[in-house]
Amino acid sequence: MNPKDNKARPDRARHKAALLKAYDDAARIAFSPFIFQAAVAAKKLGMMARLGAAAEPVRYEVLAEEAGVSPYGARLLMQILSAAGVVEGSDEAGYLLTKTGECLTYDAMTAANFDFTADVNYKGLAETTEAIRTGKPAGLKAFDPAWETIYPHLKDLPAEAQKSWFAFDHFYSDGAFREALRVLAARAPARFFDIGGNTGRFTKMALEAWPETEATIVDLPEQIGLMRANPDLEGLQHRIRAFPIDWLSEGASLDGAGEADLIWMSQFLDCFSRAEAVGILNEAKKALAENGVIVVMEPLCDRQRNDTAALSLAASSLYFTVLANGNSRFFFEADLLEIFEAAGLEVIESHPNLGVCHTLFVLRPKV
Amino acid sequence: MNPKDNKARPDRARHKAALLKAYDDAARIAFSPFIFQAAVAAKKLGMMARLGAAAEPVRYEVLAEEAGVSPYGARLLMQILSAAGVVEGSDEAGYLLTKTGECLTYDAMTAANFDFTADVNYKGLAETTEAIRTGKPAGLKAFDPAWETIYPHLKDLPAEAQKSWFAFDHFYSDGAFREALRVLAARAPARFFDIGGNTGRFTKMALEAWPETEATIVDLPEQIGLMRANPDLEGLQHRIRAFPIDWLSEGASLDGAGEADLIWMSQFLDCFSRAEAVGILNEAKKALAENGVIVVMEPLCDRQRNDTAALSLAASSLYFTVLANGNSRFFFEADLLEIFEAAGLEVIESHPNLGVCHTLFVLRPKV
Repeated sequence: MNPKDNKARPDRARHKAALLKAYDDAARIAFSPFIFQAAVAAKKLGMMARLGAAAEPVRYEVLAEEAGVSPYGARLLMQILSAAGVVEGSDEAGYLLTKTGECLTYDAMTAANFDFTADVNYKGLAETTEAIRTGKPAGLKAFDPAWETIYPHLKDLPAEAQKSWFAFDHFYSDGAFREALRVLAARAPARFFDIGGNTGRFTKMALEAWPETEATIVDLPEQIGLMRANPDLEGLQHRIRAFPIDWLSEGASLDGAGEADLIWMSQFLDCFSRAEAVGILNEAKKALAENGVIVVMEPLCDRQRNDTAALSLAASSLYFTVLANGNSRFFFEADLLEIFEAAGLEVIESHPNLGVCHTLFVLRPKV
Repeated sequence: MNPKDNKARPDRARHKAALLKAYDDAARIAFSPFIFQAAVAAKKLGMMARLGAAAEPVRYEVLAEEAGVSPYGARLLMQILSAAGVVEGSDEAGYLLTKTGECLTYDAMTAANFDFTADVNYKGLAETTEAIRTGKPAGLKAFDPAWETIYPHLKDLPAEAQKSWFAFDHFYSDGAFREALRVLAARAPARFFDIGGNTGRFTKMALEAWPETEATIVDLPEQIGLMRANPDLEGLQHRIRAFPIDWLSEGASLDGAGEADLIWMSQFLDCFSRAEAVGILNEAKKALAENGVIVVMEPLCDRQRNDTAALSLAASSLYFTVLANGNSRFFFEADLLEIFEAAGLEVIESHPNLGVCHTLFVLRPKV
């Protein structure tokens, strides 16, 4: 053995360890749909909650009996989830949740993400290659081959998918809305537009925070219908006007909607291509009262608190590609600033880290 | 601050690190179908191969142009795969494969697993909960709602799924068959049965290794048809008899198949429930010539080389639940030994670690 061999050895050991780790990571990706669906089944069959609530490890036969399934099925699920680090234990000693399993079961954000993936996205994601090839949300055919975008069909989603869609949406927006209203406290407008206001969730919070304010919700006719039927808005409907619009139709404009002191757009521009977003902001500018502001709130891919949040945002961007409209995504900060610039708007305030992952911009027309 | 606080601090730091790790692991599971399908799309669009072959990092615009897709789509895929550790780099500097990405692209086993998951299992796995509830392979409806098990329909699978099914099957069996024939070198039989012989892949290797031997392939009529049409068996067909059988039909037996010195069953018993497996072995015993042996080769969940292999086996067991027959799986060693015992067979040899993951048992009837 010569000195060169000696010197090479620690490198080789590191190389080997890195290679085995990569090999394991790759296997976890290659089999990830098995792991994911084993976790979905264990959750839907009540096993995750049962394991989480147990003081002692639970045997698979007990899980099977309580869920009304075969011991074979319960055992298989536990073994996959054990190999994947979601549960720990053995057939003999019984199983418990690991910390990872606890996050999936008890962390509200992780649970909202998990259900959104399982109930809204899983089947459609099989069409990812086609969606990227065609620029169309090819995954929507998992729900209905006639749908062109998801937005007018939220009301038509199967019950479980609809529930998970709104739970996901609301989880992220509720906290961000609360904090945004604190940031905007000194700007209480006489009248504001809620563009992409959907079923009126932000409008409700805003009208409660600003008792003198009137709102106009600007959205697709289908969304306006859901908003008018929304029991949460009882007692507020007289302060809400509706302005139905399809921004993707030729010549869409806010003519006839009146003026607003504040135009609010939360997670709205990310539903459009760059050119469409610039066009929408230009239309919004025309409807601003003197000294009015446009307020845009978005989760920004490069302004997240940590790598986990960045992964979550990158992954869920694919929802837009495959199921929503085929060509939008969450923004990087520079992309959004460029859109503001192209629309002739200047940023007068920005507030990162509202709620879980949002950044809020206050904009006014450039002079 | 009292001493108790001081003492608690390192524990708290460890707890925090473990919690953040669990939170990240849970997010990777919750979004895993997005990551998986982003990798599938990057592979099918040729981006993985392109990145793997590149000497320098490749920008997403270049990947997009070469694949004939939008820069938007290529960028989104790279960002998801980057957050997931499959590629590394940035929009500005360009992207390269990580070691994990190299495993997915160049390691033949990982690639076979990945394609099997994507093309055969992904859609059907959405029915995991129903399959576990009903004991039926509910995921088969992703191919055809009329199919009751996958076995007679391998010939009817869509081209891509069929290719990935056989690539997966052959990857594992080829190496194990070669090593099994080495182990059995001294036992060259005058006549052997290949039970569950499928398209004749083992029979071909065995007839080449044993030039004096005759084979009988025992399988479903559909499989026999594929075997007789298999161009690989040209020049060997005169040494092959066929015995069509459906083991799940009432009174299935080997009567009329003659006697065998060696009865071979590779990854066959795992397609059946415990009681069915015992019944099949009992039938096989009756067809043994004097001093004949039954040879069973199976991947055993608890006899794998490492955790990665154990995860792979646990995960792919779910294929049996959701897509194959609804109630079988890869064995644990004790389960299989119990089945041998119940069928009145004794193990005279066992050989672990043949090929990637198989264990071979040589059995004879107990006296």
